[in-house]
Amino acid sequence: MQIGNRIPSMKASGKDGWEIVYRTRALLAAGEPVVNLTIGEPDRPTDRRVLDAIHAAAVGGLTGYTHGPGLPELRVAIAERVTRRTGVPTTAANVIVTPGGQAALFAAHMVLLQPGDTGLFVTPHYPTYPSTILSTGAACASVAARAEDGFQPRAEAIMAAQQGTGARSLLVNTPNNPTGVVYAAETVEGIAAACRETDLWLISDEVYDTQVWEGRHLSPRALPGMAERTLVIGSMSKSHAMTGSRLGWIVGPEDVIAAATVLATNTTYGVVPYIQKGALAALALGEALEEEIAAPFRRRRAIVRDAVAGSRAVRVSASAGAMYVMLDIRATGLSGEEFAHGLLDAERIAVMPGESFGAAAAGHLRVALTLADDWLPDALHRIVAHAERVMQQSG
Amino acid sequence: MQIGNRIPSMKASGKDGWEIVYRTRALLAAGEPVVNLTIGEPDRPTDRRVLDAIHAAAVGGLTGYTHGPGLPELRVAIAERVTRRTGVPTTAANVIVTPGGQAALFAAHMVLLQPGDTGLFVTPHYPTYPSTILSTGAACASVAARAEDGFQPRAEAIMAAQQGTGARSLLVNTPNNPTGVVYAAETVEGIAAACRETDLWLISDEVYDTQVWEGRHLSPRALPGMAERTLVIGSMSKSHAMTGSRLGWIVGPEDVIAAATVLATNTTYGVVPYIQKGALAALALGEALEEEIAAPFRRRRAIVRDAVAGSRAVRVSASAGAMYVMLDIRATGLSGEEFAHGLLDAERIAVMPGESFGAAAAGHLRVALTLADDWLPDALHRIVAHAERVMQQSG
Repeated sequence: MQIGNRIPSMKASGKDGWEIVYRTRALLAAGEPVVNLTIGEPDRPTDRRVLDAIHAAAVGGLTGYTHGPGLPELRVAIAERVTRRTGVPTTAANVIVTPGGQAALFAAHMVLLQPGDTGLFVTPHYPTYPSTILSTGAACASVAARAEDGFQPRAEAIMAAQQGTGARSLLVNTPNNPTGVVYAAETVEGIAAACRETDLWLISDEVYDTQVWEGRHLSPRALPGMAERTLVIGSMSKSHAMTGSRLGWIVGPEDVIAAATVLATNTTYGVVPYIQKGALAALALGEALEEEIAAPFRRRRAIVRDAVAGSRAVRVSASAGAMYVMLDIRATGLSGEEFAHGLLDAERIAVMPGESFGAAAAGHLRVALTLADDWLPDALHRIVAHAERVMQQSG
Repeated sequence: MQIGNRIPSMKASGKDGWEIVYRTRALLAAGEPVVNLTIGEPDRPTDRRVLDAIHAAAVGGLTGYTHGPGLPELRVAIAERVTRRTGVPTTAANVIVTPGGQAALFAAHMVLLQPGDTGLFVTPHYPTYPSTILSTGAACASVAARAEDGFQPRAEAIMAAQQGTGARSLLVNTPNNPTGVVYAAETVEGIAAACRETDLWLISDEVYDTQVWEGRHLSPRALPGMAERTLVIGSMSKSHAMTGSRLGWIVGPEDVIAAATVLATNTTYGVVPYIQKGALAALALGEALEEEIAAPFRRRRAIVRDAVAGSRAVRVSASAGAMYVMLDIRATGLSGEEFAHGLLDAERIAVMPGESFGAAAAGHLRVALTLADDWLPDALHRIVAHAERVMQQSG
């Protein structure tokens, strides 16, 4: 039986950019020790107080169907948090709770785009971005943020891409996975101007907004004329170490939230109510918990910078936020893929090649800060030493 | 800002069939007592042992991301259960775990249909069926199962609908919501023959398969030549009173499961792992728990039949399984909608008009068996008395 060709089209033919991950899994399964710096997930479990709140809600009887857009009290809590953090007046009617940030990304594009429309995304990018847009039946096109610009996208590039494709939406991500860039105020202003100028919807993925080490996170929804054309994607995954609990949201105009609620009837039928109560408990723990979860990444970023400082072969790029550091290894003359495979061969250290996140990150490596501090200095010294050797051999 | 017209198109213009539900909510909110027989959800919470298993898994550290298609041990348990219940050899590779049965219905249509294709569904139907198909970008068309046939769909009607539309898939549901019909073996054989003859994919929604009061549930996947063209939708919601936990699955050919797993990367990013452990614990409790959950519906169906027996105005139709009884009130001369609104006005009893589930159920009422036994005899006697009065007045 023939299945629709929508889904297989999401898979890149042959190589899919995750070969290092597959090789690492295979090595670990075979009992080989590998220092694994590829994992984009907090290296700690969900806070016990949050898990107990989930259990208490379930045992208390909250085990049935819930409202499509989420529990009213959680929508209010998310709205208040967004208002407090961004200054944009936001109510529960601007919020829909989704089963995770990825579901929010999918729903946002489903609501905004028709089959045949085009959605833009900035690259280097989180790997699901293009396939998420394609899944909706829309086409996608990328806007490159160049290494030379510190991975900050330029307004002119967005306008050119919109004009070349007739796109109806643009997906951006700050703080960014994989580059760790935190968009400067001028960058966000440029994005906003390009969206207003070319009548683009903006989908702003801000799931790392509690993890900023340099500069300041500015939500584009806070700029003039943007609240009515911006959907913000949020999640408890990274800020509260709740990846497995699948709890995210969209913040946007009321009519978009209403449409997303209709869509949810057909796709998810709501979000587990007792987990929503857990999210409410987690938000009530306030910035103390968020800082406790962000602190290791802040420390480890400093460790990486110290270890790399002074190398001619390896340079830290962007990396002002999120749980990743981007290393520029172009001085070695190798691509990120070549370097990553060689590093895994020689040193049994796994890092993601920049190319896995788009050609705009070629010649770079993404180092995840999700390994205990103790392991990092030695791993980074070995990465630098490997790069120096490669550079000498090629030079 | 203009949003895509995909989502608003899911809403029927003006009336949406749920007016009785809205009126009931409004009356209850205003403090009016209403006997509510509209609710399609078990009237008991999830079993405490299941909730404790969920908590134990979470506290044990299972709070991170999981495999796309589900925990291996849960996929194995579902496959073994399906093999045991249907006789069709089924392995973990034939199973993907989804966040609820509705998500499984959506994913099944996403994988099988391209934008522009047509998916068929049998009506009377669960209300999300047409909008779920439309959400994927496909068109939909219905095949009527007629009251005169006891709501058993005919193979000729399926073949005619396929030939008229070029449809690629057919969605059926047995035991059925809303009619309670359990498809006879000849019906299932006719469906299978029509699918083979016209090369249709079959999506078989069997979420009520533990609730059969008369006859025997036959999964169409078990018929010759059907395993390779059938996707079975399953869920813990009804069989294990776990509606809020959003845990369902698709069972189907390996290539479909592989495609659905790629899709899940873009739509859900997996299912809460500690809830998957809860589902595993629930399945391990075996038929004892399933029977404990089904027993009230079996009892209440008998109560309804006894209360209606001998009435000239009200007749029980179909209703051999699932948590609903269908009452045929055509002898009163009223439509289901007219009758339901009149009943709510006069007796403060809320039932769903058959028309809410498609024109094929016109002149019928769906009574949910989700109210405690004590309330049912009086409510049914009042429904019958109301119908007799209406019939006398019109006659």
